[in-house]
Amino acid sequence: MRIIVTGAGGFVGRALVSRLADLNSEHRIVAIDNAAEGIPSLPNVIAIAGDLRDVGILKEAFVDGCDAVVHLATMPGGAAEQNPDTAWQVNVEATMMLAEIAASGGASPRFVFASSIAALGKNLPSIVDDNTALAPSMLYGAHKAMMEQWLATLTRRGVLDAISLRLSGVVARPKGPSGMKSAFMSDVFHALINGERFVMPVSQHATCWLSSLDSAVSNFVHALPLELECAPPVRAVTLPALHVTIGNLVAEIATQTGQPKELISYAPEAELDASFGRYPPLHADAARALQFGDDLSLTTLVRRTLSSIMPAWTPQL
Amino acid sequence: MRIIVTGAGGFVGRALVSRLADLNSEHRIVAIDNAAEGIPSLPNVIAIAGDLRDVGILKEAFVDGCDAVVHLATMPGGAAEQNPDTAWQVNVEATMMLAEIAASGGASPRFVFASSIAALGKNLPSIVDDNTALAPSMLYGAHKAMMEQWLATLTRRGVLDAISLRLSGVVARPKGPSGMKSAFMSDVFHALINGERFVMPVSQHATCWLSSLDSAVSNFVHALPLELECAPPVRAVTLPALHVTIGNLVAEIATQTGQPKELISYAPEAELDASFGRYPPLHADAARALQFGDDLSLTTLVRRTLSSIMPAWTPQL
Repeated sequence: MRIIVTGAGGFVGRALVSRLADLNSEHRIVAIDNAAEGIPSLPNVIAIAGDLRDVGILKEAFVDGCDAVVHLATMPGGAAEQNPDTAWQVNVEATMMLAEIAASGGASPRFVFASSIAALGKNLPSIVDDNTALAPSMLYGAHKAMMEQWLATLTRRGVLDAISLRLSGVVARPKGPSGMKSAFMSDVFHALINGERFVMPVSQHATCWLSSLDSAVSNFVHALPLELECAPPVRAVTLPALHVTIGNLVAEIATQTGQPKELISYAPEAELDASFGRYPPLHADAARALQFGDDLSLTTLVRRTLSSIMPAWTPQL
Repeated sequence: MRIIVTGAGGFVGRALVSRLADLNSEHRIVAIDNAAEGIPSLPNVIAIAGDLRDVGILKEAFVDGCDAVVHLATMPGGAAEQNPDTAWQVNVEATMMLAEIAASGGASPRFVFASSIAALGKNLPSIVDDNTALAPSMLYGAHKAMMEQWLATLTRRGVLDAISLRLSGVVARPKGPSGMKSAFMSDVFHALINGERFVMPVSQHATCWLSSLDSAVSNFVHALPLELECAPPVRAVTLPALHVTIGNLVAEIATQTGQPKELISYAPEAELDASFGRYPPLHADAARALQFGDDLSLTTLVRRTLSSIMPAWTPQL
């Protein structure tokens, strides 16, 4: 299978490219990112360094044909608010150009789009399910919602075979600036691993939807060969995720790392708490019917996450 | 009230500008269109001729402030399919630029966006209501769906006070090329008025959603001062419309014009019949709750429409 992955040097991209390369040595993966350094260096991976807004870079990726695209590259929430014009170019214009080139080959390739729960907005009902209307308030979420609509339209027109996967918070991103307002969900892992104090910007009662990197990558891999009907709700699904209370997350990480949970204190910031700390139960029935999954338990989510940060780590349980 | 109307020289625009000017001599209407000729020449109407894609034209419209915008200008279905790049510039980029300038004043003005039932797509369920998912297949419908989302996002952000009104077929447009695939719904009126033969490209059993020009204009006027909560479904509503069977429409026009209905024959074209001839019952509850209306009966719709084409006309009933 010839697979193009954008954002291939990013947190999810690196893990996805490595997994795809491992799964089948016959896979030929064209991996695009702004810089080549982050892209895994593997025999069946062709790295392309360049800006997705450059049509020449996009065309280069398709030179030898393409069976599927996984489009991860994006300018996320906080960064998009700071740079609205660039965010529009990256999140909308580049996505449309990529889709147009993918569609132009005539083979209607699978196009897996990394959408986000930011498309749902922050004033969520008491339960979120597949009928919950998209009501983004961040530019990032609006861009994702619009691209879900555009890609579904191209799919109904028969020129593309797209599915948009709305991702929850994926942990644990590397430390350092990510442009993501939800970075605290990852930073708390790094703090406890290192026995450092950390102040959470949401309360311990805050509730989030979380997924391990392992689970996120599995869902992208699962989407590649999936047979889909063209029914509208199935072309954009909210992926299953664990509904986690922050206090429980901290306790579980503390237990598995053998650190005192008192290293973590709480100083809720109103805006972050409202945006990232009030997620109700999620019924991701459409995605579950398509066999997408989550981490099953908080214990597993934390174990997988600690393992991904420290490959040599053995659980303290 | 200072009101900016785009597409002011078009079919709906001319009638809306005239109505607004009539309603209150204190209204100050800035009327924009590509050419000044179509814009009603009235004391309280300031005509601006120019391309909406030109930011200078947009800024000129806002020079003396603005309480509300009615954004009618668009590149419709058939034309958009022929000119996808221009359609994107007009339907998306110019709409966003207009919204950005309207939002930048700090007063969060009302922004009434002429959306379309094309946003719903063509494979409709057995009844369409406010929960029906948008599933456009035409570029035009996708552009409308995306702009509904964008304008609702700006409204949730507090910088604009937008409502998108999804219009059904508005009759009767002037004869001649309109870029609209649904032009036959208007052409049948002109044919019967003139006692001419006309071949309908849909069957007599085809069902459409129709509105008179009078009703459409009333709905736009109604939207201007309307108080709205920010709840998502209320920021984009499908306007009420009559659910009309084409054979019944032809019979009613024939009766009211005193012409034989046999002037109209039927040669259904598969694509048009599928796109414009299979509309199920419409339950526009959200719009009705906001006091938007339709023509109440086919008799009234036809009478209003004949009156708008021939102001001196007296019904033959």
